[in-house]
Amino acid sequence: MPSISQRGQDMPASPIRKLVPYAEAAKKRGVHVYHLNIGQPDIETPPSILDAVRHFNFKVLEYSHSAGNESYRHKLVSYYAKKNIDVNYKQIIITTGGSEAILFAMLSCLDAGDEVIIPEPFYANYNGFATEAGIKVVPVTSYIESGFALPSTEAFEKAITSRTKAILICNPNNPTGYLYTGPELNTLRQLVKKRGLYLFSDEAYREFCYEGEHLSAMQLEGLEENVILLDTISKRYSACGGRIGALVTRNQEVLDAVIKFAQARLSPPAFSQILGEAAVDLPDDYFNTTKEEYRKRRNALVERLSRIEGVFCPSPGGAFYAIARLPVSDAEHFSQWLLESFAFKGQTLMLAPAEGFYGTDGLGKNEVRMAYVLNVDSIHNAMDCLEAALREYPQSFSSKKAHNLSYK
Amino acid sequence: MPSISQRGQDMPASPIRKLVPYAEAAKKRGVHVYHLNIGQPDIETPPSILDAVRHFNFKVLEYSHSAGNESYRHKLVSYYAKKNIDVNYKQIIITTGGSEAILFAMLSCLDAGDEVIIPEPFYANYNGFATEAGIKVVPVTSYIESGFALPSTEAFEKAITSRTKAILICNPNNPTGYLYTGPELNTLRQLVKKRGLYLFSDEAYREFCYEGEHLSAMQLEGLEENVILLDTISKRYSACGGRIGALVTRNQEVLDAVIKFAQARLSPPAFSQILGEAAVDLPDDYFNTTKEEYRKRRNALVERLSRIEGVFCPSPGGAFYAIARLPVSDAEHFSQWLLESFAFKGQTLMLAPAEGFYGTDGLGKNEVRMAYVLNVDSIHNAMDCLEAALREYPQSFSSKKAHNLSYK
Repeated sequence: MPSISQRGQDMPASPIRKLVPYAEAAKKRGVHVYHLNIGQPDIETPPSILDAVRHFNFKVLEYSHSAGNESYRHKLVSYYAKKNIDVNYKQIIITTGGSEAILFAMLSCLDAGDEVIIPEPFYANYNGFATEAGIKVVPVTSYIESGFALPSTEAFEKAITSRTKAILICNPNNPTGYLYTGPELNTLRQLVKKRGLYLFSDEAYREFCYEGEHLSAMQLEGLEENVILLDTISKRYSACGGRIGALVTRNQEVLDAVIKFAQARLSPPAFSQILGEAAVDLPDDYFNTTKEEYRKRRNALVERLSRIEGVFCPSPGGAFYAIARLPVSDAEHFSQWLLESFAFKGQTLMLAPAEGFYGTDGLGKNEVRMAYVLNVDSIHNAMDCLEAALREYPQSFSSKKAHNLSYK
Repeated sequence: MPSISQRGQDMPASPIRKLVPYAEAAKKRGVHVYHLNIGQPDIETPPSILDAVRHFNFKVLEYSHSAGNESYRHKLVSYYAKKNIDVNYKQIIITTGGSEAILFAMLSCLDAGDEVIIPEPFYANYNGFATEAGIKVVPVTSYIESGFALPSTEAFEKAITSRTKAILICNPNNPTGYLYTGPELNTLRQLVKKRGLYLFSDEAYREFCYEGEHLSAMQLEGLEENVILLDTISKRYSACGGRIGALVTRNQEVLDAVIKFAQARLSPPAFSQILGEAAVDLPDDYFNTTKEEYRKRRNALVERLSRIEGVFCPSPGGAFYAIARLPVSDAEHFSQWLLESFAFKGQTLMLAPAEGFYGTDGLGKNEVRMAYVLNVDSIHNAMDCLEAALREYPQSFSSKKAHNLSYK
């Protein structure tokens, strides 16, 4: 009998999804579950862009160009121009979700055994793509005490080896919500320039910044050859299921490599490219409404968390995530317990244990990520549950006492 | 300045697409180009399944399950049952095109440095996915003289090393159109069983068999742990742009690995899953019409080719491709010349040089692949062009004389 590959074994299971069976069981028992665990926004996809898909008029669902429809790529030039990102359409390759942009960047720039440095905690699926590409992820720790600000130059320098080819950031950050500042980006600029590294910049949450303006890595001077922008429409327009993203760079050698990976898989999905193209025409104030809604949710979440004893949650500057430290010793155990053994007024909440977002073993064990993708009322209800749960959670499992892991 | 990866450099450019600039130039000169070079069918996508997409009624374009919508997977069980393939929905993982099914199978079953044996000529993008996965493709040659029948057991045995983990077939075959027989599949069955290998079976063209019935690798007895079916709706329903495929296997360990790769990229595209699900409900005779159309085209193509002096083209039993040997010494040069320097009544044709479908250097140099994805009239026009072209093609480039490669 043939055996599966080592990388098939090494491939990490999704830390976000592994509690799903417990949530399903809770729902079968009639418990309402507030999903703060996953970045699936409840915001409606703009009806006009869904209509654009409804009104397609082709008769043959053909392959598109491997780099995506030219009309869409031209449109995106104007979208990026509004964001002060100056690119031409040949510098944009449409990908199947931001996911594929990440994978293509890794495959094109790094060989198996090469290293990418990522501030931790980080989006867990970076691990997955790195495993696919045979790349080693080297974490550099950011800390909840400083609100997950960029680690110091020294910390990055210490992590760089002869195999380091790239630094990957997510700005604003998933899972921390941290929005990198101008000085921080300048630090990165100097670092990648000095060490001849790529800077992969995942800007999936660009439109959702609550404190100050978003600065794109594409705006950093002198990094034309270094920066690869990883983008997606998933969060921007609440269009996660469309699986449309983009890889954008001014580095022609990288574009030449990426297009070969793109050609192998033929083309990105057709219907969602129509949606993406229509989205560029949304009125300029579209994001204001959405952003204000997220801001309210963030404020509600952070304010409620700040009132719970033993909980610490720095207010995130962007995206729609926050990481909170809880007064428990094992947040995964607590999250499972919330689904298996707890209910408050017939309700509970689902959290993402933060441990899975760290590359360093042992970090984040008492932290959880919360996605504020539910409306303010739901967030209040979920916080009512959390408050009650932390009161009720057996002392033996709390941070003050060692807990019995056999429960897991 | 950072450099791109070795695999980025090694990644093969698409042999089908590299003549595209010459075709574009021909069109700019006003020459009509018959595209026999690419497997993009002109058959209309069934209007009812396009309508199913138009009539979606969700308000949020959400992620689907990483394995695809459960309703779709259940539907596919009934599709496969009609094809005498007995599987349950948990054994089906929806992928982003057949492309992703191929990549997931390679990643899950083979490690970097492992080998997959593929009868050549083969679908050129297998090379691309193998390069992504760091896998070595070991070709075993099939020959035009035998109509590209399966190579002998001895040839396979000779190619097997300690690193061999899988044999990959495409049935019916792209690019040869060959339909594997029961005895041939039985040969493979014994081989993979004896040597403990995976059998990857790409059955993208299952519905288009003109001589006899299609036999799926999933029907081979005793291979529950060995067979991975790689599937797609692209050709089946003329839905190439949808990017919906499936990986199907009864091997639970493989499913467990594949789902982790699937989770990393979150989900397959949403709109096209609706299309795929609706397609299962097409009337049973849907394929008859399409198949008869392709049969007519095949007959027209092969019959015309058989009348051209010096051309040899075995009649393909399935898919919509044929490989022909031409009386030229360099089919790529000829194909480029057709686009650059030739026209007959203001028309020419675009061919896919077969060399790019071979893994062994030097094979297929005087062969081309033709996709009969155009209607019978167009095929006749294209054959008129080919006849005239072979008369007009400079003697110095014909197979009887050495040609000056500086032309390239």
